[in-house]
Amino acid sequence: MKTNDYDHNMVLVNETYNVVGTRPMRHDAYDKVTGRALYGADFQIAGLIHGKTLRSPHAHALIRSIDTSKARAAPGVLAVVTGDDLPQSDGDRGLKYRRANILADGKALYAGQAVAAVAALSPQEAEDAVNLIEVDYEVLPPVLTALAGMEGGAPLLHDDLMTEDIGAVIDTPSNLADHFQHRLGDVAQGFADAEVTIEEEYKLQTVHQGYIEPHACIALWNQDGRIHIWCSTQGAFLVRDRTAEILGLPVSQIKVTPLEIGGGFGGKTEIYLEPVAALLSKKTGRPVKMVMTRKEVFEGTGPAAGGYVRVKMGATKEGKLTAAQAYLAYEAGAFPGSLVGAGAMTVFAAYDIPNVLIDGFDVVVNKPHTAAYRAPGAPQAAFATEQVVDDLARQLGLDPLEFRLRNSAKEGSRRADGPVFRRVGCVEVIEAMMAHPHYQSDLQGANQGRGVAIGFWFNIGEPSSCTISVNDDGTVNLIEGSTDIGGSRTSIAMQAAEVLGLRSEEVIPTVVDTDSIGYTAQTDGSRTTFATGWAAYEAAQDVNRQMRQRVATIWEVESEAIELSGGVFSSKANPELKMTFKELAGRLTRTGGPIVGSGTVNPSGIGGSFAGGIADVEVDPQTGKVDILRYTAFQDAGKAVHPTYVEGQLQGGAVQGFGWGLNEEYVYDDQGVMLNSSFLDYRMPIALDLPMIDTVIIEVPNPGHPFGVRGVGEASIIPPTPAVANAMRDAVGVRMRRLPMNPEAVAEAIRAQNPQGK
Amino acid sequence: MKTNDYDHNMVLVNETYNVVGTRPMRHDAYDKVTGRALYGADFQIAGLIHGKTLRSPHAHALIRSIDTSKARAAPGVLAVVTGDDLPQSDGDRGLKYRRANILADGKALYAGQAVAAVAALSPQEAEDAVNLIEVDYEVLPPVLTALAGMEGGAPLLHDDLMTEDIGAVIDTPSNLADHFQHRLGDVAQGFADAEVTIEEEYKLQTVHQGYIEPHACIALWNQDGRIHIWCSTQGAFLVRDRTAEILGLPVSQIKVTPLEIGGGFGGKTEIYLEPVAALLSKKTGRPVKMVMTRKEVFEGTGPAAGGYVRVKMGATKEGKLTAAQAYLAYEAGAFPGSLVGAGAMTVFAAYDIPNVLIDGFDVVVNKPHTAAYRAPGAPQAAFATEQVVDDLARQLGLDPLEFRLRNSAKEGSRRADGPVFRRVGCVEVIEAMMAHPHYQSDLQGANQGRGVAIGFWFNIGEPSSCTISVNDDGTVNLIEGSTDIGGSRTSIAMQAAEVLGLRSEEVIPTVVDTDSIGYTAQTDGSRTTFATGWAAYEAAQDVNRQMRQRVATIWEVESEAIELSGGVFSSKANPELKMTFKELAGRLTRTGGPIVGSGTVNPSGIGGSFAGGIADVEVDPQTGKVDILRYTAFQDAGKAVHPTYVEGQLQGGAVQGFGWGLNEEYVYDDQGVMLNSSFLDYRMPIALDLPMIDTVIIEVPNPGHPFGVRGVGEASIIPPTPAVANAMRDAVGVRMRRLPMNPEAVAEAIRAQNPQGK
Repeated sequence: MKTNDYDHNMVLVNETYNVVGTRPMRHDAYDKVTGRALYGADFQIAGLIHGKTLRSPHAHALIRSIDTSKARAAPGVLAVVTGDDLPQSDGDRGLKYRRANILADGKALYAGQAVAAVAALSPQEAEDAVNLIEVDYEVLPPVLTALAGMEGGAPLLHDDLMTEDIGAVIDTPSNLADHFQHRLGDVAQGFADAEVTIEEEYKLQTVHQGYIEPHACIALWNQDGRIHIWCSTQGAFLVRDRTAEILGLPVSQIKVTPLEIGGGFGGKTEIYLEPVAALLSKKTGRPVKMVMTRKEVFEGTGPAAGGYVRVKMGATKEGKLTAAQAYLAYEAGAFPGSLVGAGAMTVFAAYDIPNVLIDGFDVVVNKPHTAAYRAPGAPQAAFATEQVVDDLARQLGLDPLEFRLRNSAKEGSRRADGPVFRRVGCVEVIEAMMAHPHYQSDLQGANQGRGVAIGFWFNIGEPSSCTISVNDDGTVNLIEGSTDIGGSRTSIAMQAAEVLGLRSEEVIPTVVDTDSIGYTAQTDGSRTTFATGWAAYEAAQDVNRQMRQRVATIWEVESEAIELSGGVFSSKANPELKMTFKELAGRLTRTGGPIVGSGTVNPSGIGGSFAGGIADVEVDPQTGKVDILRYTAFQDAGKAVHPTYVEGQLQGGAVQGFGWGLNEEYVYDDQGVMLNSSFLDYRMPIALDLPMIDTVIIEVPNPGHPFGVRGVGEASIIPPTPAVANAMRDAVGVRMRRLPMNPEAVAEAIRAQNPQGK
Repeated sequence: MKTNDYDHNMVLVNETYNVVGTRPMRHDAYDKVTGRALYGADFQIAGLIHGKTLRSPHAHALIRSIDTSKARAAPGVLAVVTGDDLPQSDGDRGLKYRRANILADGKALYAGQAVAAVAALSPQEAEDAVNLIEVDYEVLPPVLTALAGMEGGAPLLHDDLMTEDIGAVIDTPSNLADHFQHRLGDVAQGFADAEVTIEEEYKLQTVHQGYIEPHACIALWNQDGRIHIWCSTQGAFLVRDRTAEILGLPVSQIKVTPLEIGGGFGGKTEIYLEPVAALLSKKTGRPVKMVMTRKEVFEGTGPAAGGYVRVKMGATKEGKLTAAQAYLAYEAGAFPGSLVGAGAMTVFAAYDIPNVLIDGFDVVVNKPHTAAYRAPGAPQAAFATEQVVDDLARQLGLDPLEFRLRNSAKEGSRRADGPVFRRVGCVEVIEAMMAHPHYQSDLQGANQGRGVAIGFWFNIGEPSSCTISVNDDGTVNLIEGSTDIGGSRTSIAMQAAEVLGLRSEEVIPTVVDTDSIGYTAQTDGSRTTFATGWAAYEAAQDVNRQMRQRVATIWEVESEAIELSGGVFSSKANPELKMTFKELAGRLTRTGGPIVGSGTVNPSGIGGSFAGGIADVEVDPQTGKVDILRYTAFQDAGKAVHPTYVEGQLQGGAVQGFGWGLNEEYVYDDQGVMLNSSFLDYRMPIALDLPMIDTVIIEVPNPGHPFGVRGVGEASIIPPTPAVANAMRDAVGVRMRRLPMNPEAVAEAIRAQNPQGK
């Protein structure tokens, strides 16, 4: 039993590791804190010119014509591109939409959509020339919410978008791209069996991931036909593959060098600038740099979906859930794909409920096309579910965690969307919350309250590759293709170090370009430490095998008789024979040549992760301002490879949940134009808004990973918002049915509940 | 039998390949011709400062003191370093010498040796500050030739250098670092058996490789202790390992990113600037760029050794060589290591001679420490041997090629230094020369002559690594660590393409940094296409094996039953089953994940290469000027992977041989100061000096390589100089016993031979 020096870190794993589970310094620490690390906009290259984008001022408008003649003639301008410069998407509607999100295709579908772009010698000349492009728009009425979009007679965004209704295509254009259903058991009978039933509806606003670093790239379309892109992205191969698709090229014609990333949270799993910069480079023969302004990031990239969620749940007096039903209508933005599917997969996933019906609706509206945002789709659903669960517990007179524990998902629980859980940690998370000093403590003041919530994120697998080379001083170099957002260079290197009996510092990790490493999917879905770490494990095993063969050759014994343990090779046959990893590393050239090992995975053994949060708040009943007094975040990490980084993920998820819950939203005028596209007006939490956020790592090993890793990047964003809502209900009796729960909304809710208080 | 469209290309190989042996465009062609490729001095990085070196004006001087105070106080100066900043080399004399060649250690041993260096904000400020460093020298008499250095009473360069005399150390300081001997048979008896014996002596001057690009690097000593170096070099790992040694660090603390190289020819297998730039970076915390001037390249880097060679050979009247003896004394420059060893290995290697005695002498002199230069050590020796052979043939009345053919080295011939030849192509080279239209043609004018010569270079193996990743469009990415001097990206990629049934363009090669690839020795010894190409072959075989396993999984058959041929997988068991490489590449993710293959080698199957040359010259008897009228270069390439690049090597070697033979030399004053350290005064051949150089590739496959490759980069420099000398003898009857055979020397020789001609 290995225990950790952090007393709040509950360790359930009984594997003992030398490196996995420790807290070495990250390999990129010095580069990051001394400013050496190069981020998206930092990269320079000889002959660089600059691109700027013209964006639609209208949320919905036909583009009758674009006159670029004045822009082309402007000082310093070298090229102008419009949607006409992209290839035709013959018959492939999805590709047509993806291209239209890069450069508009005859119609502007959101305010901020790219319509044209200019390359010029300086950013200012490009900006000036953008303003000389004349677009003749025919403005159309916009659709701004999912429910409005599904109404009969709503303006249509696309004349070729037909609803896919539970698998069948309805042959009439519609803003409803998809309606799907998940069923489990008999939900009518389940509600009939319930003794307490609660149904409520919730409205969600569009929010942004709020990464500090704007999108930035350089593209060079070389004269040999190959394109080299340097950019900030969550996935270099994703940029390669999607840019190739947009431009109609084979993937191998593009090389992407990932730079450091200043946050992504899912928002950098899409491409925006890269194909445009490439086209401008092709036209000019020069490398083209494009860097978004903050306004462009808000208005021109993919936020998280707003929408409408209705949840109904029923339970017996003994506190057993009998049925649950959800109606989830998410705003996809201008093109289909709102991630409502993930909302539907997670809305009840933390609970073992025999009868479930979930309806999901993916609706296009005149807003930016939504992108992933940390556990994408789940926070919106859990905001509803966790408040209904809280109200059920309240009505049943049960402790809210006790109620959750009685209904917790566990090994064998079936989700309505199909999967049956293997060993998961939901019970352990709830038990850790119940046992925690925070939950045992008393609140001190008036208008204070405590709320809890739990959440589930399934995590993903997908391909990853690592290659390891042995240095003759006994260290190893590791190359990988995963963008390092949260310390993954180190959490990956540690898994290789564990296999080889090395220290973390003795594995030197480098994130390389797409020409230099095997295919590796993007850093998202909490997959990187799980999947790329597993690839590192496999590459290290490959090195281990080759090293043992080399020892066997030197000792003239069978390689099966050689063991590597604690950095020392030994022979089962002859205990006298010992050689350290370092000694052998220094002899490779003389004994046959260098040793290089590779590992690739496309893992299926994905272990979902459960998170929980306990929030204490104080609500000012006059102003509606909510202060978070204390928050403790809990999550099942499986094995926590580097607990410090896991704690960082839990804290970061909590902060983003608070922002989503209390302040953040896209404020639109009635024509669909965003009014607050700056960090001054789009209010994200800052340190002054936050208490210290305590964290508890629960370690229920994932049976599907060599070290039991689950992945921890996302689930932690789910509980904070409903936990805070439940705490506000506890504090001042109001139940918030919309986000954000900003002072204006809270004060209004308090007044509405208690009109005499005015 | 595969034949080639070049009719002069003799093809003896009867293997048929699809890619190997063709002439695809090089992968880096566009980058090179459009100026995109980044060479040593092109690289930029934020915060860059500039280093300049103070060099000794004296060939031999004690350094009593160095006062850097004025330099430190000069505008823009951030740091100054001297030899005191290097670690102590406790007891390791070789390391002490290597460090002293980076920064002088109490004594200046050649004019041009680095004594101190300055880092400043601009190159001009650094240069100005260098001139403010005050060094108090006690000037000593210099030693300027090998013979002078061995004389009793010669000034001593080192008080700790003792002669190693045929393995035994003589306990008296000396300038003779090493005297060694190779013996075969009984040389006294051999000369007794000879009916004709000729002995002559030859004097050689120092010459430079003359690469266009000067040495250049940037070093950044990061605050995490790791050093990143960007530089032009023949070997990134060599720079890594030697810089680590000089600075007393583990190799893994250094990362070297190789930039493109503007020529090296052996001269960039040494380090000069990198440790100095690193020390300046450590002192300043800034990246430091250092770029040599041409004068610094001549005076401060390693040229080829001058020296003294005496050769004696005897033959029977039937034209069989019975004995050969050589005395080779090479100038090592300031520190031991003149490559006289390679001279001794090659001096008689083209001939099968039963009785041989070779004495080699490695002598330190007050000149720059010699470095490798294309077949290092061999041209000096062959200049002697091939003229003696020519004179022997002349005395015996034999055609000089017929005489060589009768004595040609062949499979089973033993070299005096030990090795017995496997299958080699010396006979085939001589036969190709005899059969060539050039040799059959008549000379047209007065003072014209024809000469021939042959030469041998052993080539080397050493470790190389390649890693190959499969793209889902059916192409593959290949990473490697070999500096691409002569098209090796392509000649390596082609070997992988051959294995995988791809076209050359479908393999995308990248030369990566030392953190990203397995250990790979430097590009030298004609080893890159041979050894790194072999690593590519192995990596492709690894990919092939994994791809066949994947096909076997899909088809549910044994992988042994799967074949890959012509880019198509098929099943021996079921001829209906077919899948292209490209189809499978597109299915990797769904069938288990990415495929990455690695190959590493440290080959022993090195195949030496023989070269020959036929030179026609016209000598102006008044001025002594020699015009080369026609030259045909012959070489056994083993299998020529990319014949165009092989032809380029043969032509390049010929040109360098002409320069060495006719014009190039370090001109010293009597104090050992070089007088001609610029390309204006150090006269290298330019296009106007040269005829079209025809080439003939002979292909005697190397049995030690999967495709029969031998390596072709070096042997071609050996024949031109003696072939031209022999042609001059044929034209005007003079026999040149020194290099260069410049107009002054030739005119003097003609006058000496024929005094009445004046």
